[in-house]
Amino acid sequence: MSAIGIDVGGTKCLAVKVDEAGHVLDELVTPSPVAGGILSTLIDIVARFPDVTSVGVGMPGAVSSDGVVAFAPHLPEVRDMHLRAELQQRLGLPVSVDNDATCAAIAEWKTGAGVGCDDLVMVTLGTGIGGGIIAGGRVLRGAHGYAGEFGHDTVQRDGHPCPCGRRGCWEQYASGTGLARLAGTGSGEEAFDAFVSGDTTAIAAMGEFVDWVVLGLVNVLNTCDPELFVLGGGLGSRPELLPLVRSRLAEAMPGHGHRRAPRVEAARLGPRAGAIGAAMLCNLR
Amino acid sequence: MSAIGIDVGGTKCLAVKVDEAGHVLDELVTPSPVAGGILSTLIDIVARFPDVTSVGVGMPGAVSSDGVVAFAPHLPEVRDMHLRAELQQRLGLPVSVDNDATCAAIAEWKTGAGVGCDDLVMVTLGTGIGGGIIAGGRVLRGAHGYAGEFGHDTVQRDGHPCPCGRRGCWEQYASGTGLARLAGTGSGEEAFDAFVSGDTTAIAAMGEFVDWVVLGLVNVLNTCDPELFVLGGGLGSRPELLPLVRSRLAEAMPGHGHRRAPRVEAARLGPRAGAIGAAMLCNLR
Repeated sequence: MSAIGIDVGGTKCLAVKVDEAGHVLDELVTPSPVAGGILSTLIDIVARFPDVTSVGVGMPGAVSSDGVVAFAPHLPEVRDMHLRAELQQRLGLPVSVDNDATCAAIAEWKTGAGVGCDDLVMVTLGTGIGGGIIAGGRVLRGAHGYAGEFGHDTVQRDGHPCPCGRRGCWEQYASGTGLARLAGTGSGEEAFDAFVSGDTTAIAAMGEFVDWVVLGLVNVLNTCDPELFVLGGGLGSRPELLPLVRSRLAEAMPGHGHRRAPRVEAARLGPRAGAIGAAMLCNLR
Repeated sequence: MSAIGIDVGGTKCLAVKVDEAGHVLDELVTPSPVAGGILSTLIDIVARFPDVTSVGVGMPGAVSSDGVVAFAPHLPEVRDMHLRAELQQRLGLPVSVDNDATCAAIAEWKTGAGVGCDDLVMVTLGTGIGGGIIAGGRVLRGAHGYAGEFGHDTVQRDGHPCPCGRRGCWEQYASGTGLARLAGTGSGEEAFDAFVSGDTTAIAAMGEFVDWVVLGLVNVLNTCDPELFVLGGGLGSRPELLPLVRSRLAEAMPGHGHRRAPRVEAARLGPRAGAIGAAMLCNLR
C-alpha cells in the first residue's frame, strides 16, 4: 500500500507517503494553492507519487464528517466545498479529508507520543493554539467538524482582543503571541530563548505564561478528562516547557490530591504530524 | 423487563422503574444513605420493586467505565468503591453505575429534549453547574469518568473564589449563586422571579447573567461542537431564559455568521432525568 497524506498550510503544502505503520517513506513540499486552485494543486501533488492507493487531506478549517470543507480562514475560495467527493471522483482513489489539527492528533495517537492511549488531547502552542481530541478511542469531531477549537475559549472576560473578533481568548495568553506580550519581545521563540539563557525578565514572563497555559489545559481537562495531553507546535515542543507545565497542572486542577493528573508529553512527529495523520485517515474508518 | 434507576442525591435518593422506552412506571423517594450505608441503602431500594431485571445507579461523583466510584464530594465514605461489582454480586442482577449528570444527559438524549441528536451537551444550571456530553452517538466519559465538569472552567482568572478551592470558575457566574450575586438577592430563583415581574435591577442583572451563561457555553462549544445544548436545573429550565440564551449565543460564538449556532432547548424530564438515565445504562452498552 502507498497512502499519501497532504497537509494544506497557509504558505506551503506538505505531502508524505507512509507505510502501514505510519513511517514516512517519501516527502514533498509545494507552495500553497493560489485562489481557485485547491483541487488542481492537490491533484498535481498526488500525481508526483507512484502507486498511490489512498489520499488523505488535512485542511486548516472546519471539515464535516463527509469531507465537506465549510470554510478555511486562509483559503477564502473554499466555502462549503465537497472536497472529498470531488477529489475522489477526479482521482479514482479513496479520499478522506479532515481538519489539520485533528490529523496531527491522529498521527500522534497512532504513531507518536500517544501510542496506546485512547483518551488524549493534542494542543499545538505556536503563533496561535490549535487542538485535536481523541476520546474513547475515536476522533472527536463534533457535529460540524469544529471540535478542538479551545484556543478560542474565553479565559478573561474583557481581556485582549483576538483576531476572531472576540476578547480574552486563551490563545491571546498561552501562545507565542501571548508569551511575546508578557516578555516584551518580538516573538514567543525569542522570549523562550531568553528564558533558557537565564534572563530574569523572561523567567518572570515564563512563570506567568505557564500559568496561562495550564489554566486552559485545566478547562479542556474539565470537559474531556483525557489521560494525556500532547503538546506540539513551536513552543509546545520546547523540552524546557514540559516539567513546568506538569508541576503546575498537578496543583491547578480541581480535585487535585484526590485524582491523578493527566500525563503531559511533547509531540514526537514535529511539523509532519498533520500530513502523517492525513495519510492515516483512510484506514481509520 | 423492569429496569430500575436510582439517582443518589445529597439529601435524597430518587428511584424509578421504567419501560423500554424510558417511560416512568413507578417511583420511590428515600433519604440519602448515611455514612457506611450506601450499599445497604441501594439494596433496600431495589427490594422495594418487584420483578427487577437490571439496576442502574447515578452517583454524584467520578465514576470509571467499570463502575468504580473514585470519590463523591457529598459522600465522604465513598472512595475507590467498586460499587458496580459489589452491587452486582449482592443483587445477582446486571448493574451499571455512572455519574449522575451523565445519566441525566443520557435520559434527555434517549427520551427527552435530545431525541434523534447524537451530539449534545446537557448543562444543568442550579446552585452550581453540572454537565454531561454525548458525542458522536456515545457518552463521553473521559479517561477517569470526570468529563463534563465544565462548571469549573476558569472564565475570569482572578475571579470569585469557588468551593473547589480555585478562582473564577464558570459556576461562580452562571449558576443561581452567580445570578443572586449579580442581582443582590438571596437566591437565583428570587432574582429570576424579580426579572420575570419586571424589576429593573433584576433585568440588568439578568442581561449580565446571560452573558456569563453564553460565555461558558461558547467555551464548551469550542471544544465539543455539539448540535444541541440541553439546559436543565432550576434556572436552566425557566422558559424565559431560552430566547435570551439563543440570541446571545448566535452573536457570541467564534465564526458567527459563517456557521450555524447550535440549538438550545430546555430539558424535558425535570428532576427525574438522572434516575431515568440510570435505568437506561444497562441497555446502553
